[in-house]
Amino acid sequence: MKHLKKIEHLGIAVKDLESSEKLFTALTGESPYKREAVESEGVMTSFFKSGPNKIELLQATDESSPIAKFIEKRGEGIHHIAFSVDNIEEEMQRLKDLGFRLLNDKPKRGADQMLICFLHPKDTNGVLIELCQQINLENE
Amino acid sequence: MKHLKKIEHLGIAVKDLESSEKLFTALTGESPYKREAVESEGVMTSFFKSGPNKIELLQATDESSPIAKFIEKRGEGIHHIAFSVDNIEEEMQRLKDLGFRLLNDKPKRGADQMLICFLHPKDTNGVLIELCQQINLENE
Repeated sequence: MKHLKKIEHLGIAVKDLESSEKLFTALTGESPYKREAVESEGVMTSFFKSGPNKIELLQATDESSPIAKFIEKRGEGIHHIAFSVDNIEEEMQRLKDLGFRLLNDKPKRGADQMLICFLHPKDTNGVLIELCQQINLENE
Repeated sequence: MKHLKKIEHLGIAVKDLESSEKLFTALTGESPYKREAVESEGVMTSFFKSGPNKIELLQATDESSPIAKFIEKRGEGIHHIAFSVDNIEEEMQRLKDLGFRLLNDKPKRGADQMLICFLHPKDTNGVLIELCQQINLENE
C-alpha cells in the first residue's frame, strides 16, 4: 500500500488496565512490553507485540479523557486503528486535499515515540483512524 | 508473540460496499485486490492490503447476517480483529483450556483461504477476535 504502510497498532479501550493486561497476556501468551502515560489524552497505555503489529490497551486516567467518554457511550472495545506512514505531514495534506477532516491540524506526540494525527470518523465509515510516524530520536 | 503471529486483518462493517471501496481507495491510495462472498455469514467482502496486514470491508447480503445486526445496533465501524495462528485447532484448545469461550466448536471456512474461529467478545474486553489459519491448498 502506497500510503498506509501497515497496521501500526490497534487501540482497545478498557476499564481496568491491570485485569485487561492479565487477559491479553493469557490470550497472546506474552506480557506487555511497556506501560506509558499520555497526559495530553488522559490515558495510561499498555503495549503488546504481535509480530509486526502492536496492541495498545487504553485506560482513562481522568473523566474528561476521550477513552472515558468512549466507554460511557459504547462500553469497552476497539477504539481506534493506527497506520504507519513515512511522512505524517505529507499524508495529512494529501488526505485534507481529498476532503478528509483531521482532528488535529498539526501532528502531536503520541505514545511509543510516535507523531500522530486522527481522522474524523464520520469521514471513514465510523472508524477512528490514526496516522503514526516513528520519531527519529537521533534528529531531535 | 508466541501464539498470535500478527494482525491478519481488520474487519469493518459497512452499509454500502461500493461507496466504502471508493473511500478506502482514496484513503489508502490503492484499489481493493479482491471481492469475495462468504455465504455462511451472509456477507460480501472486499479486501485491501496494508503491508503485512489486510483490511476487510463487510457488507451484509441478507437481514439475518451478523453484519446487518451489528450495523443496526452500533452503526458502521470496526467489527472484528483477526490474528494469524499457525495451528488453529491447537490454539482453540489452548484458549478453551484458559476459559475463553469459542463461538464455533470446529474451525470454519472464512474468506481469503482461511480456517477461522471467533472468540466470545464478553471474554475479551468487548473485542470480537477471530483466529485465522491459512489453508494450504496443496493438501486439500
